[in-house]
Amino acid sequence: MIDIHKSVKKMAEDALDASHRLSRVSTNAKNAALLRMADEIGWHRDFILSENKRDLTSAKEKGLSAPMIDRLTIKDDSLKVMMQGLREIAALPDPVGKVTSMWRRPNGLLVGRMRIPLGVIGIIYESRPNVTVDASALCIKSGNAVILRGGSESIHSNLAIASILQDVLRESPLPDKAIQVIPFTDREAVTTLLQLDEQIDLIIPRGGEELIRAVVAQSKIPVIKHYKGVCHIFVDATADINMAINICTNAKVQRPGVCNAMETLLVHADIAPAFLPKIAEKLQKAGVLIKGCEKTRKNLKNIDAATEEDWYSEYLDLILSVRIVPSIDVAVEHIEKYGSMHTESIITKDYANSQRFLNEVNSSTVLVNASTRFSDGFELGLGAEIGISTTKLHAFGPMGLEELTTSKFIIYGDGQVRK
Amino acid sequence: MIDIHKSVKKMAEDALDASHRLSRVSTNAKNAALLRMADEIGWHRDFILSENKRDLTSAKEKGLSAPMIDRLTIKDDSLKVMMQGLREIAALPDPVGKVTSMWRRPNGLLVGRMRIPLGVIGIIYESRPNVTVDASALCIKSGNAVILRGGSESIHSNLAIASILQDVLRESPLPDKAIQVIPFTDREAVTTLLQLDEQIDLIIPRGGEELIRAVVAQSKIPVIKHYKGVCHIFVDATADINMAINICTNAKVQRPGVCNAMETLLVHADIAPAFLPKIAEKLQKAGVLIKGCEKTRKNLKNIDAATEEDWYSEYLDLILSVRIVPSIDVAVEHIEKYGSMHTESIITKDYANSQRFLNEVNSSTVLVNASTRFSDGFELGLGAEIGISTTKLHAFGPMGLEELTTSKFIIYGDGQVRK
Repeated sequence: MIDIHKSVKKMAEDALDASHRLSRVSTNAKNAALLRMADEIGWHRDFILSENKRDLTSAKEKGLSAPMIDRLTIKDDSLKVMMQGLREIAALPDPVGKVTSMWRRPNGLLVGRMRIPLGVIGIIYESRPNVTVDASALCIKSGNAVILRGGSESIHSNLAIASILQDVLRESPLPDKAIQVIPFTDREAVTTLLQLDEQIDLIIPRGGEELIRAVVAQSKIPVIKHYKGVCHIFVDATADINMAINICTNAKVQRPGVCNAMETLLVHADIAPAFLPKIAEKLQKAGVLIKGCEKTRKNLKNIDAATEEDWYSEYLDLILSVRIVPSIDVAVEHIEKYGSMHTESIITKDYANSQRFLNEVNSSTVLVNASTRFSDGFELGLGAEIGISTTKLHAFGPMGLEELTTSKFIIYGDGQVRK
Repeated sequence: MIDIHKSVKKMAEDALDASHRLSRVSTNAKNAALLRMADEIGWHRDFILSENKRDLTSAKEKGLSAPMIDRLTIKDDSLKVMMQGLREIAALPDPVGKVTSMWRRPNGLLVGRMRIPLGVIGIIYESRPNVTVDASALCIKSGNAVILRGGSESIHSNLAIASILQDVLRESPLPDKAIQVIPFTDREAVTTLLQLDEQIDLIIPRGGEELIRAVVAQSKIPVIKHYKGVCHIFVDATADINMAINICTNAKVQRPGVCNAMETLLVHADIAPAFLPKIAEKLQKAGVLIKGCEKTRKNLKNIDAATEEDWYSEYLDLILSVRIVPSIDVAVEHIEKYGSMHTESIITKDYANSQRFLNEVNSSTVLVNASTRFSDGFELGLGAEIGISTTKLHAFGPMGLEELTTSKFIIYGDGQVRK
């Protein structure tokens, strides 16, 4: 019988050891390994697809839902996207070793801050096997060892992909324990992993709110998380109505199931009569169900009342709650009370209000005259995204490669002692 | 009977509310309040000293140790240091609102990162009442509301100081719940505080390892911590011997009871015969007890053997363990294995080794040719220090005002929607 607790602990110790060595590997060596991984995934296409079939067969036997099976399925296109992702991450600048600032002290010491890897990162995710590639590539590029724990439904796909990545590591200057997939589907494996705060520096859960809450509840290791995105757009009195319609439609309809989609629309009372009927028509044509406050229901006939619960809701669906507010102050207060500190946008022509909104709303992403859908690591120019944090410590908002590093102080002296 | 749980929770909710308002207060208003606090502490000198007397009287009745009573005692000089601290923090640049970088995306969006306060910070500390002033000032300046929980032995001093600071807040544009001291000395108050992760963003414990471990074990809120500082100096083969003696003496003797004092000296075998007898003589004259590895004991007569446990030890005393190593590689491995990721220094004339040490040692502060005692927020030019972190998430090493903030993305658009 395999001792799961012991095996997982050994994996974490190996990862810690690998992370020390990986932190010293050159950017060129890391990039070469990532490019090679892309090639090898293409080369071993049949192997990956046949292992994925095993997962799909047992998923169907277990009666998993169609969307879950869809997320689980690896197609030729998904392989190409994985390969493209590896090549793009290879092309990104290496954050490790970057000296972000340096200054001279009065006693002559030259003090700087240099970026270094966090160490060991644990990724806990659900069915999508592409996370095995994406998360591994981001961790390797930023000098971190990674321990992956996917869902039991994708275990064969994940192990197949990991074995290909590990083969590349073995033939490179990188330590081969830099990427490890936990081969046990038992719950005990996660429970053990989340206690290993001596070896693991950070846990990133990727999945639904339930998964994230379960991880946070158990973990002794810091967890980067966002439970939900209740994103707001505030259409100010002076908004350009066409721009507002365009942006609100994009934010609600383009991809309603994601965390940066708009869930609540706040409309200034002065513009409501002109704006609300138009946006409602556009959204309703796109299949959106609108719920409104009392005043909204006077402007729009035949819509349901939004309840207190609605203002807190992340629908992730073609549903929108709408509130008419008398001022930007009330809009900001509403966001503060009901928001999830994820992403909010103001549509306005008023300079002072644009500045107030940017300064006073302390969500992780605050926009003026743009869609909330831009709250995404790639769209903001971070190059890639490992996740989005709505807690303020360490990282806040979309996280790219830099957020997988920390800084140490480096100090050049010539004999200084403290007085 | 007072419901402690309910009262502490109310304090945290008030703090959260205050933090929203405080994040919008101008730098000028915050600085004016800090300067006024300095004046008022001077003005209310008699009140503070008489409340401190109450604490001292009961401390003596309880038979507290002389060093504890010393830390608890407020003298005129301590008041002057507090006042000076407030004025210095007022003079520091405000980190809030600083845009650290800004870039244009291909679609025209202008994306920036702006520093914002963390929110609510809980400080848990032992006897020194000056922390009440220092921590409050740093939190206020960085736009954070603070909840302070000092030791029961200093409760009257802390409440007296806090009441003066709060009076200043009440007569300023700052929210008066921005500074609160928990008035209960019961353990239940801390237990409650550490569960309030919906209201409090960060806990900073200031005190001994025992206090910190107890806080970490209980807290649902992220804790910035350092358990200990096992700091190393590696005297390389090419070190300037006089410089090495000077720096090692400073690092061991100047203030042995602090976390950035040297605890282990690593000496390259080639320089050991010339260097060891000299440094040993100097340190022994200063009262330092030296323990050594086998090879060290061949160079130095009449010293004890260092045990495995010694290499892990933070003595915080005039004790030093010494090991002779054959190469920089073994020095780096030793630090990796036994170190606490706090502060390490290399003394060398060799350019390549200086670079290797700076790059390969991933402690929070790494120095070349300077004393480990410089690992301190003020000495490094951060202006002030709220603590030192030896965990890598959020902050690593000495923490100043910037480390009490996080960043949000701010985005200027002109109608962009996502394709």
